Amino acid sequence: DQLDLSEGLLSCVSSSEACKASAEPRNYGLMDGLPEAKALMAGIMEVSPEELVVGGNSSLNLMFDAVSRAFTHGVTEGATPWGKLACVKFLCPVPGYDRHFSICEHFGIEMLPVPLTADGPDMAEVARLAADPAVKGMWCVPKYSNPDGGCYSDATVRTIAALTPAAQDFRVFWDNAYAVHDLYEPVSVLPIGAAAKQAGHPELVLQFASTSKVTFPGGGISAVAAGPETLNWIKKCMFFQTIGHDKVNQLRHVRFLQDIDGVRAHMRRHADLLRPKFEAVQTALAQSFEGTGFASWTSPRGGYFVSLDVYPGCAARVVGLMKDAGVLMTGAGATWPYKKDPKDQNIRIAPTCPPVAELVTAMELLVLCVKLAVCEKRLEELGA
Amino acid sequence: DQLDLSEGLLSCVSSSEACKASAEPRNYGLMDGLPEAKALMAGIMEVSPEELVVGGNSSLNLMFDAVSRAFTHGVTEGATPWGKLACVKFLCPVPGYDRHFSICEHFGIEMLPVPLTADGPDMAEVARLAADPAVKGMWCVPKYSNPDGGCYSDATVRTIAALTPAAQDFRVFWDNAYAVHDLYEPVSVLPIGAAAKQAGHPELVLQFASTSKVTFPGGGISAVAAGPETLNWIKKCMFFQTIGHDKVNQLRHVRFLQDIDGVRAHMRRHADLLRPKFEAVQTALAQSFEGTGFASWTSPRGGYFVSLDVYPGCAARVVGLMKDAGVLMTGAGATWPYKKDPKDQNIRIAPTCPPVAELVTAMELLVLCVKLAVCEKRLEELGA
Repeated sequence: DQLDLSEGLLSCVSSSEACKASAEPRNYGLMDGLPEAKALMAGIMEVSPEELVVGGNSSLNLMFDAVSRAFTHGVTEGATPWGKLACVKFLCPVPGYDRHFSICEHFGIEMLPVPLTADGPDMAEVARLAADPAVKGMWCVPKYSNPDGGCYSDATVRTIAALTPAAQDFRVFWDNAYAVHDLYEPVSVLPIGAAAKQAGHPELVLQFASTSKVTFPGGGISAVAAGPETLNWIKKCMFFQTIGHDKVNQLRHVRFLQDIDGVRAHMRRHADLLRPKFEAVQTALAQSFEGTGFASWTSPRGGYFVSLDVYPGCAARVVGLMKDAGVLMTGAGATWPYKKDPKDQNIRIAPTCPPVAELVTAMELLVLCVKLAVCEKRLEELGA
Repeated sequence: DQLDLSEGLLSCVSSSEACKASAEPRNYGLMDGLPEAKALMAGIMEVSPEELVVGGNSSLNLMFDAVSRAFTHGVTEGATPWGKLACVKFLCPVPGYDRHFSICEHFGIEMLPVPLTADGPDMAEVARLAADPAVKGMWCVPKYSNPDGGCYSDATVRTIAALTPAAQDFRVFWDNAYAVHDLYEPVSVLPIGAAAKQAGHPELVLQFASTSKVTFPGGGISAVAAGPETLNWIKKCMFFQTIGHDKVNQLRHVRFLQDIDGVRAHMRRHADLLRPKFEAVQTALAQSFEGTGFASWTSPRGGYFVSLDVYPGCAARVVGLMKDAGVLMTGAGATWPYKKDPKDQNIRIAPTCPPVAELVTAMELLVLCVKLAVCEKRLEELGA
């Protein structure tokens, strides 16, 4: 159903005539993106078009490239490539996004978990850890964080912008994956780019976004925004890397979504489909577990996930029971670095995919599995 | 005109209904490509679908990624990352493609030029140089080589397939950019994949191709093929890199081009547009320079370039004179590693872009500039 909302994307650039734009999208050139697409992504990311480069289908690819480039060539011109260092560490707010952690593992980056509070990462802990010059980066999902769905407070964003890490080439990897993914009235997270400039740290942050959950996960566009020096370096390195990403698809997105107002209108249609699903999850959890001590959970106002914390030591068992019953969930531990949830309690619920009726059944099953696992655990603890 | 030949690509997948394929192209999944697209690219590359991964708009990006991956993680599981080595060298048949050489420069790879003969690279020289374990790779454009337009002979392909370099992790970077780009009757270059398997070197070659000059340079698809171990490694590493490339665009290419027969029919329409341009270049050069000693040139049966060798020491002067007269050509030296043509004689002519009338004028100008530069040079040599 969500994919069909973007059916217009398939037909909005359907002739040579329709390809007429500020530049020819079908030919070589414009490595950093079609100007109109830069403007569209700038609207989503709350930056200026000249502060970003448009990428291909996957913003994860842009994040990977940023880390890979840092390892082979440094984060900016003249910076030491991280590959030359004995040790590189990243701060990882937890629970967090498994694909961020996977990139770190792939490059041998040591991950330091930082607790995520209701206002964002524990910034006292971040400041303490960033005093180590081996700490080179930090993952952030500022709005409707994956998986807990929380939003960073203005104070947290300002504190991140004002951060003075020991490493000059420290970068905040700001994955704004759910920038416009509101289920109810839009929530505003303070734009980090402006805040970082104001704090005198224009190069501190790399921002990422994509249309994966706006149009098609299998046919969208993405973008990376950065400070002027870092962006120049990205473009210099990109010259060696590519002849440029798909500009015809960039034009499709411009024609279909128009601008940030068009994006918001489109996202309201997604929200109409998703809201009943999120509410079904909330209803099931509240009816079964409110006041029981079996589990606690988040109630996101947007994004794609609900984070469920079950009684400690039960998450893997719950996911295992669900699997035995035929429902595949994100693996327990996936939201922690090295897939190791120290308390074995966090489970990521993705309510977006199944139809509501199936979701209700799946939630009934989840409730049963949680009850069973927690009872087993409590009995074990009581030595029974 | 060439872009308009592929107008049908824009409308062949224009509804949700039209997205029905062996798998859902709009959603996540199928990181290595839509099965139908793998089959299409396999037809172009003369390999099996399971031997390749479909990429995004740019095969250069796949080549860059292959080199970058080799530097950070090695060419295959367990191989030493090239970034850990003091020195990495590549063999570069000359004249060659500047973007290949740029990737090498970007990664600090030392480039060793190898003469390109009418049959392909000088294989005695290749074998001699590949005895150095620091030599890790070799660039090849086997069909309608960039810029000279020649094709590797069967004997050369077999000799490459049988190569036993000192380095276990040596790879041939087989950029089959013009695999189907015949101007006249199709020319067959022996498939390197089969030859390498037959020679007992299934992992020796990485093959690349794209539809940049088939459909849209700004909206095509690409692919990389490799031996089973290397391809597994590529897929393993890709998991960390991306959620997958644009599968909707892959489906568009399948619908529009159908299969290798469809591709060949489509390329005949390109050839009809390009042939007069290539012939205008040949006519201009033959009329002015045949038997003069001012210049020699290639007469490609396909591809995108004509290689012009002017009297030694004159190439930079010719390109400079052309620029002064308002015609921008590929920089002199671009076809050599480090942009240094030791004899300053090679110029790459790209006849594809301008309309025939403009091309004829540009060629008249080029002829004049060559005459002027060569006369200057000869006078200088005669001490006049």
